[in-house]
Amino acid sequence: MKTETRERLVEAARRLFWEQGYANTGIAQILKAADAGSGSLYYFFPTKEDLLLAVLEWYKTMLGTMVVQPVFERVSDPIERIFGILDGYRRQLLATKFRHGCPVGNLALELSTSHPAARKLLAENFSGWHWAVEQCLRDAAGRLPDHTDHGQLALFVLTTMEGAVMLARTYHSIEPYDRAVTQLRDYFERLLRDGTEWASARPARARQKTKRRSKSSVTNSFT
Amino acid sequence: MKTETRERLVEAARRLFWEQGYANTGIAQILKAADAGSGSLYYFFPTKEDLLLAVLEWYKTMLGTMVVQPVFERVSDPIERIFGILDGYRRQLLATKFRHGCPVGNLALELSTSHPAARKLLAENFSGWHWAVEQCLRDAAGRLPDHTDHGQLALFVLTTMEGAVMLARTYHSIEPYDRAVTQLRDYFERLLRDGTEWASARPARARQKTKRRSKSSVTNSFT
Repeated sequence: MKTETRERLVEAARRLFWEQGYANTGIAQILKAADAGSGSLYYFFPTKEDLLLAVLEWYKTMLGTMVVQPVFERVSDPIERIFGILDGYRRQLLATKFRHGCPVGNLALELSTSHPAARKLLAENFSGWHWAVEQCLRDAAGRLPDHTDHGQLALFVLTTMEGAVMLARTYHSIEPYDRAVTQLRDYFERLLRDGTEWASARPARARQKTKRRSKSSVTNSFT
Repeated sequence: MKTETRERLVEAARRLFWEQGYANTGIAQILKAADAGSGSLYYFFPTKEDLLLAVLEWYKTMLGTMVVQPVFERVSDPIERIFGILDGYRRQLLATKFRHGCPVGNLALELSTSHPAARKLLAENFSGWHWAVEQCLRDAAGRLPDHTDHGQLALFVLTTMEGAVMLARTYHSIEPYDRAVTQLRDYFERLLRDGTEWASARPARARQKTKRRSKSSVTNSFT
């Protein structure tokens, strides 16, 4: 029973923070949405910020199950997996009529200055996303140009997604999102073309050697 | 005198919304920062939202003077002008210790769902930025691949900037910003290489003809 109440509180807070932001959400609203009393709220979460941290932990835990795995099960090509993840945000924008984009991005801009503990968890959420995309790029390493910095390219995919979600929400239109992803696709096509041309010009053994020597991951080096 | 008070109110609100968001800023705080009384506030701005709209109009008006012109005066190469604009945000992140990035991006995520009038002005701010970058791309059209969609590429620069600012603020580090811009630079280098190769393979007259035929602007088509 206790665990259930805690879960209901986190779920209600998560939904409300996503829909209307952290500052705009009142404790009374959370209690009503969770059908819980203030006693149980303060038992689990002495402050509103404790509840926020629990929400951010939830996102971190659920990233694999909710964002990554559904795409990986459906799509096997590592590059298409990246575009599949981006397509998930597109669907979410359309399903919520541009009201909700990326919950982590929203909270990041609202809270990273004022809430240091939340900021740390927000960064960990970004790093998790970033890491999943970097794995796809590593799986496609043989098709990308030599010396591709997989961590940096994964970060670039993340900045594109966050920026494109922001614009779609502001214009109330999927068009800026689609155009940003189309442009990213053009970049990937150029990278894949250069990667393939380069690879086919060298004997297989030399190619493998170079790959092994290529720069190791620098993901999360700034965390 | 009246104009001065109005300006002081807008400036105080602008700074506070930028530093702590719209919901987190109280009317009393604005009055104190502007050294103004509530009578003059309500005279100029019957609601807090009216003040927000004035702030967004201010950003729109000042985009040229504050963001674009200082770079255009210093830098003449149109592609380097784009990276010069991006460098302005970098300086701002460093100068404010990652507390403040792009004021429009912040307000966009906070308000685009709940404040339709503000959303429209936020979109106009993005469109102005987008337009300035698109002009640079048009000025460099002869060096870019044929059929480059200048409006779409400008939008992509904007999504990179907004996403990169978000990450720098979350990680409290300039590194994600720098890495995203480095990756964008790689993309531009590839585009410029392909544009030059393509152009040099054709006689000058045919080249000019093709450029004239190239797709006209689609910027702001989603506004």
